[in-house]
Amino acid sequence: MKFCSQCASPVAIRIPDGDTKERHIFEASGQMHDQNPKSIASCIPQCPVPNQLYHPHVEHNTGHSTIPAGFMENSETIEQAAMRETYEEACARVEISGLYAIFNIPHVNQVYMIFRAELLDGEFAPGIESLETALFSETEIPWSDIAFPVVIQTLQRFFADRPGDHFPPFVDTISSIKR
Amino acid sequence: MKFCSQCASPVAIRIPDGDTKERHIFEASGQMHDQNPKSIASCIPQCPVPNQLYHPHVEHNTGHSTIPAGFMENSETIEQAAMRETYEEACARVEISGLYAIFNIPHVNQVYMIFRAELLDGEFAPGIESLETALFSETEIPWSDIAFPVVIQTLQRFFADRPGDHFPPFVDTISSIKR
Repeated sequence: MKFCSQCASPVAIRIPDGDTKERHIFEASGQMHDQNPKSIASCIPQCPVPNQLYHPHVEHNTGHSTIPAGFMENSETIEQAAMRETYEEACARVEISGLYAIFNIPHVNQVYMIFRAELLDGEFAPGIESLETALFSETEIPWSDIAFPVVIQTLQRFFADRPGDHFPPFVDTISSIKR
Repeated sequence: MKFCSQCASPVAIRIPDGDTKERHIFEASGQMHDQNPKSIASCIPQCPVPNQLYHPHVEHNTGHSTIPAGFMENSETIEQAAMRETYEEACARVEISGLYAIFNIPHVNQVYMIFRAELLDGEFAPGIESLETALFSETEIPWSDIAFPVVIQTLQRFFADRPGDHFPPFVDTISSIKR
């Protein structure tokens, strides 16, 4: 941030009096402009058909597999964001079953929130941001091709929790993008 | 947002081709600038002393009571944000026990995340943003004086869950600021 988004006046980065961190300060008014993390909403869409419980897609940008996910937008809930992203990326309508995972990713200023979900009508197709969509059983999942560590960790936990049909939500922190 | 925060060029609000929502668009480049909700980190600091399980404070701005809470900042985890806010507002060091509540507050573009926490050394005092700090038992809590509906709802659930010593995290949506 170099300029105020309301008045276009210059913004400086310095530590205010009585503070300990560098802040974005409007030079004209002396006011601070907070820099806040963004939330990513995601879900694991499950299909009622046996052995087809995971619904990843392939993104245009990376060529890697992942589950539906994207930035939460203003005026929506996290659940609505997860459902919207699933429809945009996989043309799939889902119902949210429950919160499953929250990941802090502080080095990129993101919070990743993953829900469990049910495919409502079993239909899906590549959305505008996707190359392919597919359902996979646990043994079919292309683990080495999954784009994000948070997705790998969440799916591994999901399959470990599944025999007991108990999916307690968890919070974790990813401190590096290395896989 | 009226101007780009990187180049100070004007930003217009319109529905892009192929989209369904109004977006902030940089006129110079045609690129979109997302508007994303902010996360608020909070905790219920518990004291090991019997009957002193709730640690609210009084804010300068409102004169109402609440628990420690504030906007999550870049480069920190939600838990770190909750601990930082507790220290800033109540001069209290806490250890996070677990995630307890997530509230969507879409009409103000916020996600409110509340943890359970333990006071580490039993010490607390008004921080720079607070007028008073105090510990309350369940029967002493000034319910009618609590500033935010999410805090009232969370504390009511907390005291309902406490006899079983089981605090399953929950997600809810607040659709109005009316009390």
